[in-house]
Amino acid sequence: MRAVTLQGPGKVEVREVPDPTIRKPTDAILRVTAAGICGSDLHYYSGRIDAGTGWVIGHEYTGVVEEVGSQVAEFRTGDRVVGVISPVCGACFYCRHQQSGQCSRKEPFGFGDEPGCQAEYLRVAFADVTLERIPDSLSFEQAIFVGDILSTGFHAAHEGDIHVGDVVAVVGAGPVGLFAQVSAQLFGPAVVLAIDSVPERLALAEKLGAVPVNMAHEDALARIQHYTDERGADVVLEAVGLPASIKDAFRYVRPGGVISSVGVYSEAEFPFPMNDAFGRNLTFKIGVCPARNYMKPLLALIEQGRIDPTVVITHQLPLAEAPRAYDIFAHHKEGCIKVLLMP
Amino acid sequence: MRAVTLQGPGKVEVREVPDPTIRKPTDAILRVTAAGICGSDLHYYSGRIDAGTGWVIGHEYTGVVEEVGSQVAEFRTGDRVVGVISPVCGACFYCRHQQSGQCSRKEPFGFGDEPGCQAEYLRVAFADVTLERIPDSLSFEQAIFVGDILSTGFHAAHEGDIHVGDVVAVVGAGPVGLFAQVSAQLFGPAVVLAIDSVPERLALAEKLGAVPVNMAHEDALARIQHYTDERGADVVLEAVGLPASIKDAFRYVRPGGVISSVGVYSEAEFPFPMNDAFGRNLTFKIGVCPARNYMKPLLALIEQGRIDPTVVITHQLPLAEAPRAYDIFAHHKEGCIKVLLMP
Amino acid sequence: MRAVTLQGPGKVEVREVPDPTIRKPTDAILRVTAAGICGSDLHYYSGRIDAGTGWVIGHEYTGVVEEVGSQVAEFRTGDRVVGVISPVCGACFYCRHQQSGQCSRKEPFGFGDEPGCQAEYLRVAFADVTLERIPDSLSFEQAIFVGDILSTGFHAAHEGDIHVGDVVAVVGAGPVGLFAQVSAQLFGPAVVLAIDSVPERLALAEKLGAVPVNMAHEDALARIQHYTDERGADVVLEAVGLPASIKDAFRYVRPGGVISSVGVYSEAEFPFPMNDAFGRNLTFKIGVCPARNYMKPLLALIEQGRIDPTVVITHQLPLAEAPRAYDIFAHHKEGCIKVLLMP
Amino acid sequence: MRAVTLQGPGKVEVREVPDPTIRKPTDAILRVTAAGICGSDLHYYSGRIDAGTGWVIGHEYTGVVEEVGSQVAEFRTGDRVVGVISPVCGACFYCRHQQSGQCSRKEPFGFGDEPGCQAEYLRVAFADVTLERIPDSLSFEQAIFVGDILSTGFHAAHEGDIHVGDVVAVVGAGPVGLFAQVSAQLFGPAVVLAIDSVPERLALAEKLGAVPVNMAHEDALARIQHYTDERGADVVLEAVGLPASIKDAFRYVRPGGVISSVGVYSEAEFPFPMNDAFGRNLTFKIGVCPARNYMKPLLALIEQGRIDPTVVITHQLPLAEAPRAYDIFAHHKEGCIKVLLMP
Repeated sequence: MRAVTLQGPGKVEVREVPDPTIRKPTDAILRVTAAGICGSDLHYYSGRIDAGTGWVIGHEYTGVVEEVGSQVAEFRTGDRVVGVISPVCGACFYCRHQQSGQCSRKEPFGFGDEPGCQAEYLRVAFADVTLERIPDSLSFEQAIFVGDILSTGFHAAHEGDIHVGDVVAVVGAGPVGLFAQVSAQLFGPAVVLAIDSVPERLALAEKLGAVPVNMAHEDALARIQHYTDERGADVVLEAVGLPASIKDAFRYVRPGGVISSVGVYSEAEFPFPMNDAFGRNLTFKIGVCPARNYMKPLLALIEQGRIDPTVVITHQLPLAEAPRAYDIFAHHKEGCIKVLLMP
Repeated sequence: MRAVTLQGPGKVEVREVPDPTIRKPTDAILRVTAAGICGSDLHYYSGRIDAGTGWVIGHEYTGVVEEVGSQVAEFRTGDRVVGVISPVCGACFYCRHQQSGQCSRKEPFGFGDEPGCQAEYLRVAFADVTLERIPDSLSFEQAIFVGDILSTGFHAAHEGDIHVGDVVAVVGAGPVGLFAQVSAQLFGPAVVLAIDSVPERLALAEKLGAVPVNMAHEDALARIQHYTDERGADVVLEAVGLPASIKDAFRYVRPGGVISSVGVYSEAEFPFPMNDAFGRNLTFKIGVCPARNYMKPLLALIEQGRIDPTVVITHQLPLAEAPRAYDIFAHHKEGCIKVLLMP
Repeated sequence: MRAVTLQGPGKVEVREVPDPTIRKPTDAILRVTAAGICGSDLHYYSGRIDAGTGWVIGHEYTGVVEEVGSQVAEFRTGDRVVGVISPVCGACFYCRHQQSGQCSRKEPFGFGDEPGCQAEYLRVAFADVTLERIPDSLSFEQAIFVGDILSTGFHAAHEGDIHVGDVVAVVGAGPVGLFAQVSAQLFGPAVVLAIDSVPERLALAEKLGAVPVNMAHEDALARIQHYTDERGADVVLEAVGLPASIKDAFRYVRPGGVISSVGVYSEAEFPFPMNDAFGRNLTFKIGVCPARNYMKPLLALIEQGRIDPTVVITHQLPLAEAPRAYDIFAHHKEGCIKVLLMP
Repeated sequence: MRAVTLQGPGKVEVREVPDPTIRKPTDAILRVTAAGICGSDLHYYSGRIDAGTGWVIGHEYTGVVEEVGSQVAEFRTGDRVVGVISPVCGACFYCRHQQSGQCSRKEPFGFGDEPGCQAEYLRVAFADVTLERIPDSLSFEQAIFVGDILSTGFHAAHEGDIHVGDVVAVVGAGPVGLFAQVSAQLFGPAVVLAIDSVPERLALAEKLGAVPVNMAHEDALARIQHYTDERGADVVLEAVGLPASIKDAFRYVRPGGVISSVGVYSEAEFPFPMNDAFGRNLTFKIGVCPARNYMKPLLALIEQGRIDPTVVITHQLPLAEAPRAYDIFAHHKEGCIKVLLMP
């Protein structure tokens, strides 16, 4: 089959690779119908993380079931599905505690040896648990993000413990940040502030109901204080993952507030303002998303028109154009926010 | 001062009564700026409950502080305020447990001896706790309902324990039912179904984002099942208070679901389907609203334009026209949903 | 194999019946090591419910895995296990919502056609989800109740939403009631009152840390009021299932409190004091137990000596003595609280 | 009156100082009946924090009401009371959000200008909110800690979000750590591990139901792993406040777990293991205790014999012996865990 392979810093190529096969009775093979390029893919594309070359990249996907292993009970050939980025078992301690992001048997793909989804076909482990049926009324484009970035944005909001009437500040308005803003609004806040410095993103944030704050031109803290009687935000959702953005989160949050961070943080340490946090009673939550918990309710919201995740899709390109797709996504060319590859 | 007095079944009159005075050092006197006629007032107006005649009716109000007792610390003359329908102390067991609807010292007014708010002036007990300042940007009409019916509708939704993606059915689309629908949407449901048989109410429900279901013409349960894979509603909010509406709530709710009822129930008993409820793991919650908990966040939502409670106001009349106001409200004349008296 | 069969009102017999076999690839066959006689079994034994005769009774069990189907991944021959009374799938809407008591595919046994566990062998459906491994340090007697009555008692307490410092009243001190009392103490109440009229049960309740209240000789409500400044119990757990006990629960609970009922209620209706409940803001929860959620933590508590469920076992008899076992359990002979049959 | 005054590093003296007086109508004057020496007092006594000299120290107290201001409604002369360490208003944003540790108007005493409680008399601001009545059956010694260190230990456990069956590790077995252990047990954990290196403290921890782990002699992590199938503790309560103890907390906690820290942290920053925390989905909570929330339920538990806070009291001395009391407490002489001064 044809698949997008990593060939070195700044270089992907579509090459012929072996078709995936059923390796365990709980596997399924999908014909991939859409595959996203994710910010996490850029860690490898850019060379920031070196994981060798030649492997098939990608972990955001929808597809049609092509074949199922002998122990797959919930799906059959022809089912339209979306799936969690890292297959999860459903039976381990973590899965039973609704913390499938920590599944003891999780089988990540698209980050090295195990082939990813930017390809014509994909093997999915633990298919019964990992996959979710796409409602008939939804397109693949509408469904794809529930397996990764929409669930991640939702996770930020969910963990933020937002109360009705709260003021929520979201640091970052990239795809995850935008979805964190949209998700925050599901919990009844009085106002959601979207803080970023990219005008296109802020314009989209505003269209989606947030108050845009361009931190390049205005004092974000002052804007937050305006809405909070000078207390600070009740909840801060951090969707960038850089030391500066975490630092901002601590400046923005009010005493007794919560910082919920989902930005992929690659530094080992952060100088946590411990004495200040003690004096102000802060809660800090960070981590990867248990998308398994969220796929079903998010699909219901999309089906009823409460959320439209396609708003972040600025580009849809055939698999063959993967090199160009990576280029425009990585370098924010052509107003790119999110690209889908359509195998 | 002039005040609306109950004079017998179907009869209210505006009469001259003594001005209220500070009786305890925690009291405040308000100049009333708006007073709602509530469904509860009709229990007395209609004669269903006989509490004698001659007394000043009304418990939904906004006002401007005219005078405060010596122990009032939070308010001063000239403050624009809205207040909880039954003054609450803030210090008893129930107030400390956020259950101020059960305040041990609550001082209801407008239901007999203690004069109500459909008058030029009103005495408010425990002013520091009972009152809330109206933000400058809000009118009295925008603020008035947080002390009673908006908080009651919100209470229904809050107690319903709605999860993101849920299907919520609201039985009744009168003022409280409409606010229950609006409030339910603050908790991220996939869909809110408004069930009633009055076309004007259903039209308003639809305008406010609910799916209208006219139970006079269609099978409400079938509509619910359509949205829930035949399971029933995750949460049912009951805002009518009649045996038939409670019975419907049990028909609509799914196994493991919650019924949250705020309709004023006047019968002593209801034939609870206990064996069925046992087999289906149901939760049933009922009661009056601790509006003190909700006033502040709801005012914030109104201020930010997330909720517009004025949509239910179909009539605003001067105090002098109280007899006509009661007539049109009690008999649903002139498309009346909610009337404010403006002293 | 030998098994206990129902042969009519008041009559069970141990007979030879066919051995169970693997019927689906997710099944397991257990060699039964202990089987409880449950209050629910008495509905059939007494003839209150007529479900024919000749079938194998029993649903509380431990065993050793004898054989597993081809899709069973978590267990193998020789594993010591305890299981949920009704096999549950782990994948349906309800199982994913932690409400496995409502599992769409649940396969009850021991109540008619599908043979029960008071036998030498037992077929268990959905073995991976239904069964739980017994820690090496625990005996079968210590583990058996987590699949049914201990989990049911725990469920009562869990749903009661007990807060630290609460006063909890438990109506009924039979096996489930005793376990509800023990479980209530896991949530930090100030006091747990055990209300019953059987001296042996009350003596055991006291030994387990509850305050015994013999309702035959003293005014239970007065005792509750003594501990609550005359407010009533914060939480009432109902473990009987009769109209009189539910009625008592409403008398005992304070305004704003919770009644959590797990007693099997066999009447269709109960005259719910709706107007009173409205005025007092009550929450009423009722239903069967999702034991799947509780088995693991309860086994951990037993392993650490925090709970000793064997205290309720007054009799252990060989399978052959089932007729006598039913007789003494049904008629409270020989101080019987709970009987295990040991095949 | 006589009072303990700070006179420089390592030096306190009992001197004659002016009697306190009612300064605001919400004040009360107490005759102090017991005053604790707290670890926080040692920051000043040791000279680690320099706040000048000559002032009256102490913030843990019980007393008898001597006089009340004109607006005090809940208390009168002769009432036996215990109070929150920092008087709180009950009406600000934070108090209404149950976060009184952040009260906007809080009036700390015993840390400088405002005289503390190690004295014959004490002025308490916001008496109605700050004070709690001591049940008749309780002594001052039994009640005193609910205003500070017992509530702080409870706060650690409360914020830790402990579930029934969890394994909880408590870092530190000083007075607050011991109370964190005792409090943790109110939430139904399978096991509470007390980690410290002082044998007397560990002996007391064991007596109170925890598993003692002497980190000077054994590998604490290995002990935790033994109880958790090598996962790590579900919840870690940190009650020391040093970089090394926080670091240990991160080593001890499992993926998806919670660290709840109440140790007074005096360094500005801590090198937070952000990338690891992201990969493991950790929650970190830190801060001062809203004792107002906890006094009432903790007093109920003490009254019912569920908690005995007097176990930590190793010394009770007259006010005149304050210099010796500080000496033995600061230098862990005479097996000292906690000292009360009895004016």
